Order: sequence, then C-alpha cells, then structure tokens
Amino acid sequence: MGVGMLPVNVPEKTVRRLSQYARCLRQASLRGESTVTSRELARNCGVSSSSVRNDLSYYGEFGKQGSGYSVSGLLANIKTILGKINPPGVIVLGAGHIGTALVESGLSDADGYEYQAIFDSNPARVGISIAGIKVQPLSELSAACDENTIAVIAVSPGKGQEALEALAEGGCQAVISFNLEPLNPPEGLSLRYMGVSTELDLLSHSIRSKKARRSHHDRMELSQLTQ
Amino acid sequence: MGVGMLPVNVPEKTVRRLSQYARCLRQASLRGESTVTSRELARNCGVSSSSVRNDLSYYGEFGKQGSGYSVSGLLANIKTILGKINPPGVIVLGAGHIGTALVESGLSDADGYEYQAIFDSNPARVGISIAGIKVQPLSELSAACDENTIAVIAVSPGKGQEALEALAEGGCQAVISFNLEPLNPPEGLSLRYMGVSTELDLLSHSIRSKKARRSHHDRMELSQLTQ
Repeated sequence: MGVGMLPVNVPEKTVRRLSQYARCLRQASLRGESTVTSRELARNCGVSSSSVRNDLSYYGEFGKQGSGYSVSGLLANIKTILGKINPPGVIVLGAGHIGTALVESGLSDADGYEYQAIFDSNPARVGISIAGIKVQPLSELSAACDENTIAVIAVSPGKGQEALEALAEGGCQAVISFNLEPLNPPEGLSLRYMGVSTELDLLSHSIRSKKARRSHHDRMELSQLTQ
Repeated sequence: MGVGMLPVNVPEKTVRRLSQYARCLRQASLRGESTVTSRELARNCGVSSSSVRNDLSYYGEFGKQGSGYSVSGLLANIKTILGKINPPGVIVLGAGHIGTALVESGLSDADGYEYQAIFDSNPARVGISIAGIKVQPLSELSAACDENTIAVIAVSPGKGQEALEALAEGGCQAVISFNLEPLNPPEGLSLRYMGVSTELDLLSHSIRSKKARRSHHDRMELSQLTQ
C-alpha cells in the first residue's frame, strides 16, 4: 500500500508516535545523517524497535532489509501520511492567557502548521495584535473556517460549547479544546481535549501505581524472608 | 478488588477517560443529581456505555445492577484511583509564555492540584511574581522536588534535557514536557509530552482519513452505478 491511500483503524498511539518520528528524523537530518535503522530511530524517540516497525507496517515498506531507512525519504513519507504536505491552517478562539501564549510561541516552521487567525468575543481584545496577528470578532469566524481548518478553543470556562457550535457552523471539522468542560461535537467533527489536568491525572495515577507495585514487591520480599 | 489496591496494566485510554468521568460526575453533582447510570455518564462524556463499564471493571464493582451509580460515591472512588485525595504538588520550570499562562490560568480547585512553585534560569525573570507565586532560580529546585511532585517543563527549545536532569536529580519522578524535542528520561521517571503540534498531527491525519474514506465511498457508489 502506498502512502497515498490511508489504511483505516490505525491506533491513535501509532499516529502519535509517527508525529514523534517526524521530529526525530528532522533532528537526524539536521545532524547530517542520511540513513537510520529502526533501532536508532527507536532509541532517539524513546520507544521500542518493534513499535517503530509495527507503526510503519500500517503504511507499507519504507526501508530495505538490513540497510535501514533513508532519513529524508522516511520523513517525506511520514509527512505525507500525517497530511503535513499541504497542512491545515490553524485558527485560535480566545485571546486570553492560553490563546495568547500559543500564538506568541508560534508553531515550529518545520511542522508546517501556522496560526492564521485569532478571535475573541470580548470587544476590549478585538483589534489588538498578537505576534503580528490581529484579534478579530467572532462575527468574522466563518470566513476563516473550512474543512481544512483546525481550530483551537481556548475561551472562558463555560463558553466552549458556544465556540464549538460557531466553528461547526463555519464549516470547521477538526477542533482541539483547551476548555476541559465536556463538549457535544456535532456528528463528523473530530474533537480532542488538551489540558494539563488530564496529564496530571495520568501522572498522579502512575505515581500511585509505582507505589502500589513497590509495596507489593516489599510484601513479597518480606513473605519470602519470613517463610 | 477495592480501590486501595491498584491493578497493573490499565490502558492509558482508561485512565484518560476516568479523568473525564470525574469531571462529568462533578458537573452532575453540581446539577444536584445523586445517581447516574453508565448510559447517562457515557452520554455526558461523549463515550460509549461499554467503555464506561469496561473502564470501571478494572477497579471492581461500583454500582448496583439496574440502579446505576451514586454520583458522590463513584466520584470519591475515581478520585482515590487517580491519587487525587492527596494530590501531588505541581511545579513549573520556565517562566516564559507557556509557563506564565499555565500558572496564571491556575488549576481547577476541584481537581485538587495546585501550582506550588515556578523556576527560571533567566536572572531577569527570577523574583517576579506570577499569580502570587515568586519565580525562583533553578538552584532552589531540589528543595521543591520529591517523588510526590509533578513537574511541568516549559523551558526554551533545546534546554529540555538539562531541565529534566535537574528534576531527576532533585528526586522528581513525574514530568510533563511542553518542550517537544525528544528527551531521555532516567529509568523510573515517567515522562509525558504535551504539545499542540502532536494534537495538530492527529487532527491533520484524521482530516486526511475522512477524505480518503469519502473518496473510497464515492468510488464504491460510482462502481455500483456503473455495474
């Protein structure tokens, strides 16, 4: 299968790692490396070699047995797979702390994405310029939306659903929400939540799991000693 | 199995959804609801009922057949599972745009987490106050770290590994990196990357997949029409 056709049912973790491989390949290319083995790529990205081979196998054969992958070739293929050749435009709803920090930090040129517009419902914010992009009123939203737009919601708590509906009405089909309240996306719209709270929960759970394993291990050692 | 003991090998997506269920249960509680069925919880969180039942089954029986779950009881159990009863403290490395936006936005009280300290290596930033928290020099880091700390890395590009090593040396075992360059965590340290670029890649891939499915569907319809 060529990379022109996309297989269905690729697990999210595979796509997530492809994104990471692209980043590692770019760095390998900057270091002047022309080929990379799955083992090297795995080590650079902090994943297992079998994950690398398994992830790439969804999309066909990219390397020659024994000689590894071409850095530039594999990077180009992954960029095609991820849709980064003609990347979607990115717009931001909300010119508060998070929205401002995002637009001011910018997106890596190498990733291909670019912030194209920022919107806010607060008239006091409309017209100010953030990293050279003027904040527009929500009434201008639909002109900036289409099915190739990814929108980032970073509005006040409680205003997420309203923002999502305005985006869907404007024709946007892909949304990242920094608002953590649960939103009801209309059918067909892909919605992802991105909040530090969820990541904190995942790490808090991992701290607890580690402690549980350690205390289990301690009990096992103790029971062996006392047998 | 009680929630005191944690099962091993719980999939990340289950923990991620538990975090979401906690958020939905809190909202149900604010609406004055005292019980909730798995179907209602699923609808509120935008997941399937079988996901809810499957996720909770890792931790034992929480509801009575037919009568659903107690909102406050299930919330308390999930908070215990996630380690939110005595939640880890959160510290931030980097008082640039992202670090400042995080600390200024704060964390929801209901989540239990709290930003406790913020650090920066830039002497010009040390001493300024962000949301009432004074920026400290990196030399003070180890006093703020222990195995119950979650650290957020939001330092300049290229400085992530250095920050990670300082954290590990200070005894921190759980890190969220907003720096997207690949970092090499020492053994035992849990590291998560959080960047809008990865989420953009996931959505860009989903836009491409949707188009591929649509064009496949169109071709199938055409071939049926022309048969």
